Amino acid sequence: MSELITKAMKAKEATSILNSKSTENKNQALQSIAAQLRKEQAYILEENNKDIKNAQKNGVHVSLIDRLRLNPQRLEEIALAVQQLVALDDPTGKVLATWKRPNGLEMNQVSVPLGVVGMIYEARPNVTVDAASLCLKTGNAVLLRGSSSAIHSNKALVKVIQQGLEHSDFPIDAVQLLEDTRRETATEMFKLKEYLDVLIPRGGKHLIQTVVEQATVPVLETGAGNCHLFIDETADPQMAIDITINAKTQRPSVCNAIETVLIHKQWAAHHFRVFVASLRESGVELRGDEGAQAMVPGLIPAVEADWQTEYLDKILAVKLVNNVDEAITHINKYGTKHSEAIITENQEHVKTFFERVDAAALYHNASTRFTDGFEFGFGAEIGISTQKLHARGPMGLTALTTTKYQINGHGQIKA
Amino acid sequence: MSELITKAMKAKEATSILNSKSTENKNQALQSIAAQLRKEQAYILEENNKDIKNAQKNGVHVSLIDRLRLNPQRLEEIALAVQQLVALDDPTGKVLATWKRPNGLEMNQVSVPLGVVGMIYEARPNVTVDAASLCLKTGNAVLLRGSSSAIHSNKALVKVIQQGLEHSDFPIDAVQLLEDTRRETATEMFKLKEYLDVLIPRGGKHLIQTVVEQATVPVLETGAGNCHLFIDETADPQMAIDITINAKTQRPSVCNAIETVLIHKQWAAHHFRVFVASLRESGVELRGDEGAQAMVPGLIPAVEADWQTEYLDKILAVKLVNNVDEAITHINKYGTKHSEAIITENQEHVKTFFERVDAAALYHNASTRFTDGFEFGFGAEIGISTQKLHARGPMGLTALTTTKYQINGHGQIKA
Repeated sequence: MSELITKAMKAKEATSILNSKSTENKNQALQSIAAQLRKEQAYILEENNKDIKNAQKNGVHVSLIDRLRLNPQRLEEIALAVQQLVALDDPTGKVLATWKRPNGLEMNQVSVPLGVVGMIYEARPNVTVDAASLCLKTGNAVLLRGSSSAIHSNKALVKVIQQGLEHSDFPIDAVQLLEDTRRETATEMFKLKEYLDVLIPRGGKHLIQTVVEQATVPVLETGAGNCHLFIDETADPQMAIDITINAKTQRPSVCNAIETVLIHKQWAAHHFRVFVASLRESGVELRGDEGAQAMVPGLIPAVEADWQTEYLDKILAVKLVNNVDEAITHINKYGTKHSEAIITENQEHVKTFFERVDAAALYHNASTRFTDGFEFGFGAEIGISTQKLHARGPMGLTALTTTKYQINGHGQIKA
Repeated sequence: MSELITKAMKAKEATSILNSKSTENKNQALQSIAAQLRKEQAYILEENNKDIKNAQKNGVHVSLIDRLRLNPQRLEEIALAVQQLVALDDPTGKVLATWKRPNGLEMNQVSVPLGVVGMIYEARPNVTVDAASLCLKTGNAVLLRGSSSAIHSNKALVKVIQQGLEHSDFPIDAVQLLEDTRRETATEMFKLKEYLDVLIPRGGKHLIQTVVEQATVPVLETGAGNCHLFIDETADPQMAIDITINAKTQRPSVCNAIETVLIHKQWAAHHFRVFVASLRESGVELRGDEGAQAMVPGLIPAVEADWQTEYLDKILAVKLVNNVDEAITHINKYGTKHSEAIITENQEHVKTFFERVDAAALYHNASTRFTDGFEFGFGAEIGISTQKLHARGPMGLTALTTTKYQINGHGQIKA
């Protein structure tokens, strides 16, 4: 049997043991993993260094190498993140609803782990530990499929996690790494409905698209954010500029950063020059539609592609609009249903915007950068869902659970 | 532009109007549709008759023709089902959670329609009206793709539904039928992520498998039920036999009927002969493992395939087991995670069974035939989910909703 099938089978077998573990057991295992990560620091960094050297030899871009690199401080942060899960509420084993039917059947809906989670991700070793500990806290087994460029780091981290599991009497098969990183094996994994209950891809657009296109296992889609900010006629000028700068520049490479600002023509008439100057001062390249160009000569023209692009860079497209309706139409046409904001003092427009814009998170007078499990107060995050099924927006521990109906009778049969 | 793209685009456009309709508006539209279905009875039956004649000409099996056939009574039942939705709670527009963050952000999670539902189904005209009215009640637009063998019935029904929508000032694009029933068009529909938010296939195993394999639009998987009944050592003999007969014979062709009975050896030693006689009296063909054959000579031997088969017929596989653990292992190996029952007086065994069997609905001392939206008290059903994401088990109106976060600030930016 292939490595994939063997490990997936073992993961499925582990689920019934995981089901019987108490919250206290799970918390002990998390503590034990954190301790082991600290104890094996030298070993992990040594293995990580092999990946770094390979990446350098292969001429990988310096920013990607930085993502791959572990050091004592980063490893400590990773261990700390595992420990922080201990304090969070265990979302499994809760009775979510209970009712009695006229025929006497006692109905209970109970929250339970998903089962086996397939995690597919790129060269970030911290995701290995994150995903393993989030799955452990929610009683799920996890089959990890990371990037070949992080294979030494991932093998070391999973080995250390399994040591932690062993010390706390947990099945080591609860957390496994697929060491075979060939593409055709990944494709096989996407279709392994017999053993995997859900796939979570985390990484770039291409990775996620590949999983969505090829998978028959249900997918929790995360990712792309072509986010907008609409500055309405009544927007406070300073607030609008501050939020634009924050949402664009605080971390341009992430999915909840904005890519296009839509500006009401009346607001623009008074404040657009200051707006442009402030953005330029923050190092942002602006690309404007005709209306914007007319107000600030020399602005780089925005073309159709600009409305569609997630720059992930300090570039911002700007379009002038006549009203909130026009803004909503633009957003629903080009947005990726992630995070959308309106800056206004008009409560009617907030209501319209909140009702009619189709997105996971809608903001009034705040930065889109808050779409994040930690900022939402979930304490942890497995990703941000951009689809509408199961979980929408930041996914905390609860997104890693499903439900079961447990029904008690005394011999009821259907008439 | 193709019919598919045109109609999908119109459906998406209709969603923003649907979003602004009140529960009262939606209920009026449902009443108007019911009235129109009654008014146009002659026309609908005439069109349905064309499908029936075609099916007869093509030598379609009589049971399939029966599914296809409408008559005044069936049409009245369909109209009544539409009206019954009026009394049900509208699950959209509810504030599901509300909290405040330390930075002052006011967080609200609100239930909203999914958007555009793609419904793919076989030759049952009642599904056309069912799906349209369930989607309407939940503010969703629906693109229906029925079977070519029901095309006249479906066209007539959708025309009449659209008349009902028009009379109550609803966009007729909220309910549309894809008249192009070519396979390649369906395949294109499965991948129409730009316009469709979810696909719901309803029908046979082959249809559902095709959708799951080819779709990139998220799928709410419904369907297969290889369900089991475990008769434990302490099971009340009469109750065990009554429930077995009910779960097998009350309607053998449905997904929540049982296919295999697992019997504790001690119980079998006392009651197996009576059990066999009772089942045979009810017209059930039994196929037994070696243990069962040893007790009742002449029993048809069960082979590996029997444990895997959803007979959908009056056939039942029987296996003797040593204990509840063996029963659970068998169920988790062969079951389709639909509905599973235990008959026992031992509360510890109920607990073990409920915890360790991986299925949507678990029953103690009751028939599996209750896995159904109406029997659960949901008032309506769009299908029974056999996957773990979004909705598990019977899906009522709530399964046709998703959520949005609406966040109010006063200028918050991320530090």
